[in-house]
Amino acid sequence: MKKSIRRILITGMSGLIGGIMHRALEGKYELVALNRRPVPGVRCYQADISDLSAIRPAFEGVDVVLHLAAVAHGGAPWEEVLRHNVIGTYYVFEAAREAGVQRVVFASSGAVIMGYEADLPYKKLVEGPDNPLPEEWPLLTHASPFRPHGLYGCSKIWGEALGRYYCDRYGLSVICVRIGAVLPGDKPTAPRHFSVWCSHRDVAQLLEKCLIAPSELRYDIFYAVSNNRRNYRDLTHAREVLGYIPQDSADVFVY
Amino acid sequence: MKKSIRRILITGMSGLIGGIMHRALEGKYELVALNRRPVPGVRCYQADISDLSAIRPAFEGVDVVLHLAAVAHGGAPWEEVLRHNVIGTYYVFEAAREAGVQRVVFASSGAVIMGYEADLPYKKLVEGPDNPLPEEWPLLTHASPFRPHGLYGCSKIWGEALGRYYCDRYGLSVICVRIGAVLPGDKPTAPRHFSVWCSHRDVAQLLEKCLIAPSELRYDIFYAVSNNRRNYRDLTHAREVLGYIPQDSADVFVY
Repeated sequence: MKKSIRRILITGMSGLIGGIMHRALEGKYELVALNRRPVPGVRCYQADISDLSAIRPAFEGVDVVLHLAAVAHGGAPWEEVLRHNVIGTYYVFEAAREAGVQRVVFASSGAVIMGYEADLPYKKLVEGPDNPLPEEWPLLTHASPFRPHGLYGCSKIWGEALGRYYCDRYGLSVICVRIGAVLPGDKPTAPRHFSVWCSHRDVAQLLEKCLIAPSELRYDIFYAVSNNRRNYRDLTHAREVLGYIPQDSADVFVY
Repeated sequence: MKKSIRRILITGMSGLIGGIMHRALEGKYELVALNRRPVPGVRCYQADISDLSAIRPAFEGVDVVLHLAAVAHGGAPWEEVLRHNVIGTYYVFEAAREAGVQRVVFASSGAVIMGYEADLPYKKLVEGPDNPLPEEWPLLTHASPFRPHGLYGCSKIWGEALGRYYCDRYGLSVICVRIGAVLPGDKPTAPRHFSVWCSHRDVAQLLEKCLIAPSELRYDIFYAVSNNRRNYRDLTHAREVLGYIPQDSADVFVY
């Protein structure tokens, strides 16, 4: 797909990951933003993704969409999850389909499987580096049954399901990335981050690889975390399909 | 759980499966209906599941909820799927939690994996009994990755995800049943029904077994289809966990 990609639309560019991707991609592609607030330094369509007719113009002439806009915390209230993540994500897929976009890269979340952290051995892993490692732990893969954290996690499963449907029904390529803990200070700040932390440059590497992956990739799901010793999310699939090689590790930090 | 079950609330009792369950369960349990239209012969709370405050009274004193109410076809438009299946199902779980209900049996659908029918070998299977069987086909299990048909299928994945979350977070027991083609005439009427047909008494058997399964069963997913030769959905899990033994088969019908 690389050769034919010119214009990338990023929803939610004013967020943390949006800013990281803005800096990582600018100068290499023609970037366009779809955002409620204006975004300095980029052509920005100001609209709310819960309004389909308002967001349509942003998708014209777009090759690939990176859909980041969402309420992004596990404790988000129902009304916000419904409006932005459930309805808004449907409208983003719908507008992408209408405009003939080639691919949507959907920012899913580790929250779709974070429920496993309540049980052993994952419970031990996320207690942080002051605690012994379990003897072994099965990695969760992109095919593991979901166990969502919060309505937020449920809404990300909804987005992955919509993506699968838009791929099968309309031929839209959809790649879901279950992003770990990407943090403002770009380092772990809580015990479980030593399992699920993802550095700015690692998330940027993985998301860019998804944006430009060959068009033969029709639908897939990847985890985005750094190379952390206490990690429990499979990275083999991202390495084999996309060539993702994390550059960072939570292990170098002292908590 | 059997001993302690007295009152069962059925949402959508005026639908086809609602009527089947009404007849199958009356006299054995205290039945209550939550329905937009009145339901003859049963205590009925008339309300729309997209209105949380209106449905709350129906859940008082209820032991188990059988949640059938939904728009129930693959081609349902977005507004209806959103209102009834996405928002309504959330409110049913929320009202059940608030009222201290023990279990919700959620009518999911084979539509969550029906996307597989576009590809071999499933494509061959659903072409009906006039066509040769594939040499072999892997059964889809409750742990197979989803491939939804329509927004309807996506909404059922949403319901299964919510159920998993309500189980993990609030201790509500949730059993999801991916119901096949339950038909008004109780016999196959299209080629694919010879794969996915589920007779009235088979769906009644499986749903009742879910309602009364031991309280140790916290969250699970089962397929409801009859014993059809062209079936591609695993029934071993339902047999092992619930003792489900289908009594009917599409194979006895001539198409």
